[in-house]
Amino acid sequence: MASVRKAAIIGVGLIGGSFALALRNADKLSHVVGVGRDAQNLDQALARGIIDEATHDIAEAVRDADLIFVSTPVGAMAEVFSRIASVLKPGALITDGGSTKCSVIADARAALDDRIGQFIPSHPIAGSEKSGAVAASSALYRDREVLLTPLPENKPADVARITALWEACDARVTRMTPEAHDELMAVVSHAPHFIAFAYMHAVARHPDTTGVLAHAGAGFRDFTRLASSHPRMWSDICIANRSALLAELDRFEQAHAELRNLLQRNDGAALEERFTNARALRDAWAASPIVSRTEGE
Amino acid sequence: MASVRKAAIIGVGLIGGSFALALRNADKLSHVVGVGRDAQNLDQALARGIIDEATHDIAEAVRDADLIFVSTPVGAMAEVFSRIASVLKPGALITDGGSTKCSVIADARAALDDRIGQFIPSHPIAGSEKSGAVAASSALYRDREVLLTPLPENKPADVARITALWEACDARVTRMTPEAHDELMAVVSHAPHFIAFAYMHAVARHPDTTGVLAHAGAGFRDFTRLASSHPRMWSDICIANRSALLAELDRFEQAHAELRNLLQRNDGAALEERFTNARALRDAWAASPIVSRTEGE
Repeated sequence: MASVRKAAIIGVGLIGGSFALALRNADKLSHVVGVGRDAQNLDQALARGIIDEATHDIAEAVRDADLIFVSTPVGAMAEVFSRIASVLKPGALITDGGSTKCSVIADARAALDDRIGQFIPSHPIAGSEKSGAVAASSALYRDREVLLTPLPENKPADVARITALWEACDARVTRMTPEAHDELMAVVSHAPHFIAFAYMHAVARHPDTTGVLAHAGAGFRDFTRLASSHPRMWSDICIANRSALLAELDRFEQAHAELRNLLQRNDGAALEERFTNARALRDAWAASPIVSRTEGE
Repeated sequence: MASVRKAAIIGVGLIGGSFALALRNADKLSHVVGVGRDAQNLDQALARGIIDEATHDIAEAVRDADLIFVSTPVGAMAEVFSRIASVLKPGALITDGGSTKCSVIADARAALDDRIGQFIPSHPIAGSEKSGAVAASSALYRDREVLLTPLPENKPADVARITALWEACDARVTRMTPEAHDELMAVVSHAPHFIAFAYMHAVARHPDTTGVLAHAGAGFRDFTRLASSHPRMWSDICIANRSALLAELDRFEQAHAELRNLLQRNDGAALEERFTNARALRDAWAASPIVSRTEGE
């Protein structure tokens, strides 16, 4: 039997659409309202059975909802939370799919004030460079990790309810602090995206971009895949997690400068040693059982 | 009928082993001698039918060979060419699989002197992070691009013969100058490898490497795949193509610094614009017919 009578999905893209599909699949949702600005995307969500009803009006969708899932780009969440706050009913729970947690929590706290306990922040480590309702899948979260960063104000029963919903999506829930979340995501996700975008930006500046790209191969394809990610989503994430990301980019720049100096000095042996260590670390990670559990982005 | 009576493969790894397998498959080689230092790798090459005979002695293998394929790391090629030079028979042809061309040609020229015309330099854009005879495949070069950088001293008939051999591997041959080759490879291959190694080096320096890697996902996996490449092969390539690679790393550092400044200034709109352009370029490349033809590394 459905445990949620009415759910509102704010932002029916890959993340929000897949959450709705997975929970419908598990028979956890009775009625789903989708909120978005893009009428064509909402039509696709209706046609695919992701949502039962579509609206552009957050207040209308949220008014009598028991569960609200916020899956807009993180830069839009402050406004979303303030619209939710005006109509949020007691006992309703809010969670989100944002890739940063400190900024999202600050936005929620500012809007919800003494009702902040109704917001249980989460981040599913899943996704792809594809976006929109058309890319949503009930299997997106299967065997993936969801990082939950509960607040001191959350009731344990509510945290358990949100945990159970993610587990109904076949995800595995790990709890941590918002700060720990943001720092580790800066390392394993945000910096790689930033660097991939920066590298493509450098290729765009090459005097013969078309000529060189004509000979790019599979290594180039994998290395640059993250640069095909959603620009607005990722500029939002970078800005929202700015200080942790800047710290990680510092670390990258130092490591890069060290290797570059070895190259400049023609020190092949030292370069080989650094490459050997880098490969050992990467191979150990790729061989670990963690990897099969966290294939998402 | 086999067009090559006896071939010597110097370095029976992924590149050399696959060249031999593909040509055997096309019935172009009668007898193949493999040369290497690693006895276990040579045993595997014999067991897999890649080579008919194995030796550690380059001179012995080359003495009566009609075709010599040099597929060692590029840093070892100077020594290989000088050993070849002492026993090379008139009319025999040499080609290579090196990822840099100017340095390899300089090494060949120094060793072969007035017999440099017997060396037709080539670079198959194929490979993977896997290495060794165990990874060799007769299909590695199928529909991949081989960049041929002929020398003024090469006879047109000899260039045509090497071209035909690559085509017998089902590869597509493109000719260009060694300088153009090295510059474009610095952009689309060498810099991505260098940056991926540098990024993993940065992760290794994180105070909680194990903790953060426990939550890395598919984006991390693709972005770092090149850091699982062969350390000696890649330190050799970086050193051999040092000036073109340093120029490309300059371009990358400038692009990275520009984006980083936008982040530092909290300019999300400008960041989004740069990401949008980067994605457009990457998506246009990924959608182009070139990509399916050049899936190799």
